[in-house]
Amino acid sequence: MRMYDIIVDKRNGKELTQEQIAWAVAGYTGGSIPDYQVAAWLMAIYFQGMTERETAWLTDAMAASGELIDLAAIPGIKVDKHSTGGVGDKTTLIVGPIVAACGVPVAKMSGRGLGHTGGTVDKLEAIPGFQTVLPKEEFCRIVREVGIAVIGQSGNIAPADKKLYALRDVTGTVENISLIASSIMSKKIAAGADAIVLDVKTGRGAFMETLEGSLSLAKAMVAIGEKVGRKTIALVTDMDEPLGAAVGNALEVEEAAATLRGRGPEDLQQVCLELAANMLLLAGKGGGHIDGCREMARQALTDGRAFAKLKQMVAAQGGDPSYLEESGSFPAAPLILPVKARISGYVTAIDALAIGNASAVLGAGRLRKEDDIDHRAGLILKKKIGQWVEEGQVLAELHTAAADKGEEGSRLVARAIGIGPAKPQLPLLIHSRVTAAGVEKLAQETGT
Amino acid sequence: MRMYDIIVDKRNGKELTQEQIAWAVAGYTGGSIPDYQVAAWLMAIYFQGMTERETAWLTDAMAASGELIDLAAIPGIKVDKHSTGGVGDKTTLIVGPIVAACGVPVAKMSGRGLGHTGGTVDKLEAIPGFQTVLPKEEFCRIVREVGIAVIGQSGNIAPADKKLYALRDVTGTVENISLIASSIMSKKIAAGADAIVLDVKTGRGAFMETLEGSLSLAKAMVAIGEKVGRKTIALVTDMDEPLGAAVGNALEVEEAAATLRGRGPEDLQQVCLELAANMLLLAGKGGGHIDGCREMARQALTDGRAFAKLKQMVAAQGGDPSYLEESGSFPAAPLILPVKARISGYVTAIDALAIGNASAVLGAGRLRKEDDIDHRAGLILKKKIGQWVEEGQVLAELHTAAADKGEEGSRLVARAIGIGPAKPQLPLLIHSRVTAAGVEKLAQETGT
Repeated sequence: MRMYDIIVDKRNGKELTQEQIAWAVAGYTGGSIPDYQVAAWLMAIYFQGMTERETAWLTDAMAASGELIDLAAIPGIKVDKHSTGGVGDKTTLIVGPIVAACGVPVAKMSGRGLGHTGGTVDKLEAIPGFQTVLPKEEFCRIVREVGIAVIGQSGNIAPADKKLYALRDVTGTVENISLIASSIMSKKIAAGADAIVLDVKTGRGAFMETLEGSLSLAKAMVAIGEKVGRKTIALVTDMDEPLGAAVGNALEVEEAAATLRGRGPEDLQQVCLELAANMLLLAGKGGGHIDGCREMARQALTDGRAFAKLKQMVAAQGGDPSYLEESGSFPAAPLILPVKARISGYVTAIDALAIGNASAVLGAGRLRKEDDIDHRAGLILKKKIGQWVEEGQVLAELHTAAADKGEEGSRLVARAIGIGPAKPQLPLLIHSRVTAAGVEKLAQETGT
Repeated sequence: MRMYDIIVDKRNGKELTQEQIAWAVAGYTGGSIPDYQVAAWLMAIYFQGMTERETAWLTDAMAASGELIDLAAIPGIKVDKHSTGGVGDKTTLIVGPIVAACGVPVAKMSGRGLGHTGGTVDKLEAIPGFQTVLPKEEFCRIVREVGIAVIGQSGNIAPADKKLYALRDVTGTVENISLIASSIMSKKIAAGADAIVLDVKTGRGAFMETLEGSLSLAKAMVAIGEKVGRKTIALVTDMDEPLGAAVGNALEVEEAAATLRGRGPEDLQQVCLELAANMLLLAGKGGGHIDGCREMARQALTDGRAFAKLKQMVAAQGGDPSYLEESGSFPAAPLILPVKARISGYVTAIDALAIGNASAVLGAGRLRKEDDIDHRAGLILKKKIGQWVEEGQVLAELHTAAADKGEEGSRLVARAIGIGPAKPQLPLLIHSRVTAAGVEKLAQETGT
């Protein structure tokens, strides 16, 4: 086989064979195929696309390039959840405990934040004592005994994806649905998931800004799941404005705990319940009916079992669960600054991308991979889209360690929030649910 | 400037600026831009194409990447001729002397053969004593005194093109008209041409097999010439069957000399006269009328001045012109083998690509760059398309040094020549003439 022929076949619009794709991925990962040939191939894929079969073969080849986590030691159907990344997205901290409380094991590997989006591992490390690095045996033991554990992703999961993504990043070949979908799915498959629920964000703060793009990505990932034998459901959810009110690590853990205590923001609770219900469905719960699963999830949240499960997990991973009992327990940032409305009106927009960047500036995120983060930093939105605000009222509360960061953050947040005279249409919170059977419109409005 | 943006702009179908193209070419040649980014860029160009302006800017940037030959020391308009490569294409050896005999200086740098096509430098080296490497001053002196000199191409002409071509060759990005056209034109411009006549071959033995592709290439190169201020005319000529009868180095020099003595094959003479006439036109001869130039060229050929000019040039470059006086003067190959017709009929096809490969197998060409060539080797076609042949009559005469090469060559040649019961339509020898004013169909049949 020659890489040249694989490039030219794809360039000419031919469907590649599974052997060609596996050979190319293995050769690139192993170093026998040079960057420049793969770069040309990726650009040809950008223009010619990949069929569903090719995309699934690429996913399999990337998953097979490194460690394959074996979760067989944990009984039951392991359902993973993945978000394409957003601002204020603390759903894992809520959804995981709900699902675990319903008897479905959650063995989750999560990532760190980069740029304007946060990462679950960073959030958990805001809890004093919490360990995100555990030996595999210890991880599996906690899942077996507690029902849930969340750790950082191992370094050798899908190295082909890592190498390909780095190349795509510098060659203008990131923006292709097949490449994006296979990149995400390869890591989930290598991490040992039996079934997968995807939270595909859409809007200003999402990887995919347009609803059309997000739906395409959702469909592509569900199709891969079908082809590689992992049942997959995707929800397309809003990321035009941040999810919930809190953005920043300790602040988001507090909000997640509050949600599990029944005191969370409505939008966050809705998205979490729908994600949890779909995970339960894939695990075979609720008699195989989504409505039954929705009811199960709601029960586990409202009767406190999910909150208890979060505390158990935190304790099992070395953290101090007492911080979760009530709001205001975490160490506060030295400076807390209000951002006030300069005019009265309706909040018409809260640019999630700009809010995410502001949070990073305040100290909560990484602008570069090697940056340190301040777990106390971030911000709390006091208003959401559609709400009325009086001139001088507080729109957001910024938490930071330094006055200059606070000043820059204030400017960014003030600019990110639009205020106008007319009540805006509320963004759709959960746009649609994509399963192997097709696309179902859910169309729940934020805050309803 | 960032290469990433240049890739993405082209990927998205934007026209690049002259600054972007110059920066990318200079950066790649200088080593600051890596292969993988340029490979992605080239594939994006493959799909999105380049405008005429972009193609001209690319040509200029590649020409400027290395040595720019200054022919100012030679008075007059220097018109270069370039063939896109064919089999039996010894036109430079005939056209150059005709043009020089008409008082237009010919300061030509030529290439070597590779694969199935020959190169003028290899052919000239078949003449005992002929020097193809000369100091630049000596080269210019011969052009001034004799009117013509032909040497090998300097190593540092358009190094950007060399580097880009090597990358295109392994990344499936050769087949793009803008990239092909700019590659050819950059070298001609760097070699100091004031005006350029292009012989764009079309058919089985040509770089472009289809007439449509050859016409596009011709138009693209003429457009570049206009944009960079070099008057350019392109002829699209047949390369379905080889040009003339001789293929191989000494054999082709013999045929070229015979043509200048008035005893050459009709097709070869026609193509040469038309090329020469167009060069004369660009040099301002014939009162600016192509018919006047055609008459000038024919005169210089028939009255022996062109032949005298060839002999002067050979002598000036150290060669022994006595070899050119009559056919059969060159050292003969040890084996001369006939290929005979196995049935009677009309010759319906002589696959130029297969004949070129057979000639290389016989010893006349290089299969790899580092191969040696045997100047005596090659073949003489005894029949051309449209001629009647009796069973047992000789179709071609193979010249080689070794019996095994002769055997393989015989097989290839026999397979390359088609014989059928019906008289075929003769291929059009000169399809069209492309100038800045447009495309003119010439449509001369072979052998008419």
